Amino acid sequence: MTQTKHMLSLLVENNAGVLSRIAGLFTRRGYNIDSLTVGETQDPKNSRMTIVMTCDEAALEQIKKQFNKLIEVIKVTELSYNNALTRELVLIKLEADENSRSRVIEIANIFRAKIIDVTAGTMTVEMTGDEVKISGFLELMRPFGVMELVRTGFCGIERG
Amino acid sequence: MTQTKHMLSLLVENNAGVLSRIAGLFTRRGYNIDSLTVGETQDPKNSRMTIVMTCDEAALEQIKKQFNKLIEVIKVTELSYNNALTRELVLIKLEADENSRSRVIEIANIFRAKIIDVTAGTMTVEMTGDEVKISGFLELMRPFGVMELVRTGFCGIERG
Repeated sequence: MTQTKHMLSLLVENNAGVLSRIAGLFTRRGYNIDSLTVGETQDPKNSRMTIVMTCDEAALEQIKKQFNKLIEVIKVTELSYNNALTRELVLIKLEADENSRSRVIEIANIFRAKIIDVTAGTMTVEMTGDEVKISGFLELMRPFGVMELVRTGFCGIERG
Repeated sequence: MTQTKHMLSLLVENNAGVLSRIAGLFTRRGYNIDSLTVGETQDPKNSRMTIVMTCDEAALEQIKKQFNKLIEVIKVTELSYNNALTRELVLIKLEADENSRSRVIEIANIFRAKIIDVTAGTMTVEMTGDEVKISGFLELMRPFGVMELVRTGFCGIERG
């Protein structure tokens, strides 16, 4: 079966073991996680996890079934690019001196990215977007020389 | 000893088991993770993890030592609010009708947040910032009625 990217949003109880049990599920089955984010929700008892993975439909169904068996997992939702708004935050530190600085600013403005730090030889840019926007931005930034790239991984929220 | 928030940035090899081993360390010692993000770096062989936890100095030293023992962990850096730029991405879905909509937009503009979805009864706002900015923003949004809150957790990059 064809391998595609899937994004799962998990509402989980906020306890010390849940992350390790969820990560363990992936390890035991040899599935790799493309990205994972976990943060608080409006209710401090719960956390929201967003997991992106590349797998076929059979593996996806298997993983969802396993998640639903964990007592700490309250709800599993599959987010697609149609029913959800997905965003990632990227911090990128570039080599940039006085000659290239204005070109970096130009591209950052087009993508509504923010310059958050500048030194004599570097610039650090913050930007958010969906997958298409972020990969487009990184493509344009690469020629300047990427010194460091930090990505949060995707998070998503259902529309409407 | 006093419990404070600590942020660790880990450069790790990108393999299926590493997240589970790191999460397992926390579980076994009963430490809770406030937030965790993991995403790709400029080198597809490696991932960058940013972990925020609340603990005392002794626990922090213990955890750092344990991380350094894992062969998949290439480098552990402690990020402080002085040496690093830290950011989180937040998606927040609010109850908002035609009466409250303009007030939401007003606050969003002040915080340079973006409105990414609107329906007759809801608005979804995306914003990024450091801890102070985000908690300030959430404080102002709460009275409108938060239907859903998704946070990526913090990521950070060293300055300069």
